[in-house]
Amino acid sequence: MLIDQQHYRSIWYDEAQRAAFIFDQTLLPHRFHTIALRTLDDFCQAIIEMKVRGAPLIGATAAYGLALSLRHSAKDIESTYQRLLATRPTAINLRWALDKVRKAVHDNPQLTAFVAALTACHQLCDDDVDTCSRIGNHGLHMIEQLILPKKKAGDVVHILTHCNAGWLATVDWGTAVAPIYKAHQKGIPVHVWVDETRPRNQGASLTAWELLHAGIPHTVIPDNTGGHLMQHGMVDLCIVGSDRTTAHGDVCNKIGTYLKALAAHANHVPFYVALPVSTIDWTINDGCREIPIEERSSDEVTHITGRDHFGNIVTVNITPDGSPAANYAFDVTPAALVSGLITEHGIFPASAAGLDVLRKKISL
Amino acid sequence: MLIDQQHYRSIWYDEAQRAAFIFDQTLLPHRFHTIALRTLDDFCQAIIEMKVRGAPLIGATAAYGLALSLRHSAKDIESTYQRLLATRPTAINLRWALDKVRKAVHDNPQLTAFVAALTACHQLCDDDVDTCSRIGNHGLHMIEQLILPKKKAGDVVHILTHCNAGWLATVDWGTAVAPIYKAHQKGIPVHVWVDETRPRNQGASLTAWELLHAGIPHTVIPDNTGGHLMQHGMVDLCIVGSDRTTAHGDVCNKIGTYLKALAAHANHVPFYVALPVSTIDWTINDGCREIPIEERSSDEVTHITGRDHFGNIVTVNITPDGSPAANYAFDVTPAALVSGLITEHGIFPASAAGLDVLRKKISL
Repeated sequence: MLIDQQHYRSIWYDEAQRAAFIFDQTLLPHRFHTIALRTLDDFCQAIIEMKVRGAPLIGATAAYGLALSLRHSAKDIESTYQRLLATRPTAINLRWALDKVRKAVHDNPQLTAFVAALTACHQLCDDDVDTCSRIGNHGLHMIEQLILPKKKAGDVVHILTHCNAGWLATVDWGTAVAPIYKAHQKGIPVHVWVDETRPRNQGASLTAWELLHAGIPHTVIPDNTGGHLMQHGMVDLCIVGSDRTTAHGDVCNKIGTYLKALAAHANHVPFYVALPVSTIDWTINDGCREIPIEERSSDEVTHITGRDHFGNIVTVNITPDGSPAANYAFDVTPAALVSGLITEHGIFPASAAGLDVLRKKISL
Repeated sequence: MLIDQQHYRSIWYDEAQRAAFIFDQTLLPHRFHTIALRTLDDFCQAIIEMKVRGAPLIGATAAYGLALSLRHSAKDIESTYQRLLATRPTAINLRWALDKVRKAVHDNPQLTAFVAALTACHQLCDDDVDTCSRIGNHGLHMIEQLILPKKKAGDVVHILTHCNAGWLATVDWGTAVAPIYKAHQKGIPVHVWVDETRPRNQGASLTAWELLHAGIPHTVIPDNTGGHLMQHGMVDLCIVGSDRTTAHGDVCNKIGTYLKALAAHANHVPFYVALPVSTIDWTINDGCREIPIEERSSDEVTHITGRDHFGNIVTVNITPDGSPAANYAFDVTPAALVSGLITEHGIFPASAAGLDVLRKKISL
């Protein structure tokens, strides 16, 4: 996608510099700063400190971390795998991506482990771009079939999204935002309500920044606002991403997603979840009971970082000294609240039956 | 209530200084700073800039503003009334308080307008303290009757609240927080989940600060968190305040209240609204259609103020330059989601029938 009219992916590899490159997403929207990742520590820290985030991009980053650690020796592959796997607990395709790389090493004994792994990483990234583009196409089709017939010609389609499931969360295109990019490219007038997404404000700092650079009309709103907008007919559609979806269609996503799903359900607003099939955890059914919810540092709630009027990046404390804070990173939206799952293989009902159809289609 | 073990009200009058005094609530929790209000401009600005906020305290402040403007002449009473009334559009008891003062002037021709008005203000404040204390007692009774029987002896009662409906929002005691103070004083172990309440963070900066000074255990949470907590049985009860309640029991309160009410309803968590009868608007029924929702400056969304690590109060920008933001200050929770209305006259169902019983009881 575009930054100042130039095309970027959110992660890329440069053999000359023997490094994978990312943007430090913790500095956006105020600073556009690329970082070279070379050592295992670099990769682990980038994930833990959320310089990269978003389930697909976490997977791609971990994959490169595993590959680059194999440059000189393959003997530590298992411990490296485990260390990368432990960086974040919720996103299921972190494991999926690491498994892909490890399998590539195992399946290609004719290649060095490093070459086999690196080739797998490149493929994984290209596949992710293709996957997200296809999610975008299916989502666009849904907008054309489901939403546009309810609008007058030329009316703006108002879409609410939570957190950042845009191209910065994947290698390119994004998941929840991909249909929005596709609709915009096709000339459908869209306007995006961007939940700021406390405590880390991925909506206000990343989704808004993406949409700004893509020239797509949008409005940042506090997370508290979506219910009011839906009550007043100001939202035609919600689309969010997912960090893990169960075999019964329960969706784990950024904390607060569940509240928006409740409001959408109460106000008859379609609520879609866009996800690559790699984020489906076929081993579990009940999302509320079975998905571990990461608890992050309370500092992310008690402090916030922004740009002061001199242009400096400053962190300020916004709670009283002595008041504790809790920071649950994700919540689970029960399948019954989800209108459909937009995958690279089409749109499926969020239910055991719906996901069975998907599973059969892809012969898992 | 207590600040550093000393008792305060949130507004008080000092004849020697010919001024009403308030705390500048925009500086809390970082600075404890009192302000003298003397001129009509002082009062209007204090309300508009939210140095005072909360429906009952807005009413009391406006009342003193009207009274003090009458010190030298009563001839501008109508224009002063209108100017104060226009400071905030949503809280209904702003009008109620101004009406009380104007009526006192009219009903007491034997007194100067100033003396009649000032006496009415003092009475209005004393009445507010009494009203809130009674709301606290009724809420405490509800906790004892409804919540404690579901808990084991000594178990902590977990109460979620949104925004600040504590003593800083009233003259003393608060509305939603009054039952919590009463329960704590009675030795019932309580823990409060404090919604930070974006965009102005009245929960994180005011409710948390109140509870800290009262020695009541609490945890600040992002507004996104409550649904997850309720799904996992971590909330026994929600209590919020109200800026305006309709004759059918629809509740207008700080933006985001509606989302918590939806989550409480979905998870069978009692959801109570605490309010003085003066905040009921008997002239309207349908809150969603009939209550004007204030839209405030987008700066409150795009910028946030906190304390940097040098101790300075600093405002930082948290959105990309060029991304617009929307700032709806309130939303409406339909009566069907409200378990009961805790008033100074007892607890009533949030329905036309329930409020009819209240109306008959108080012979309105």
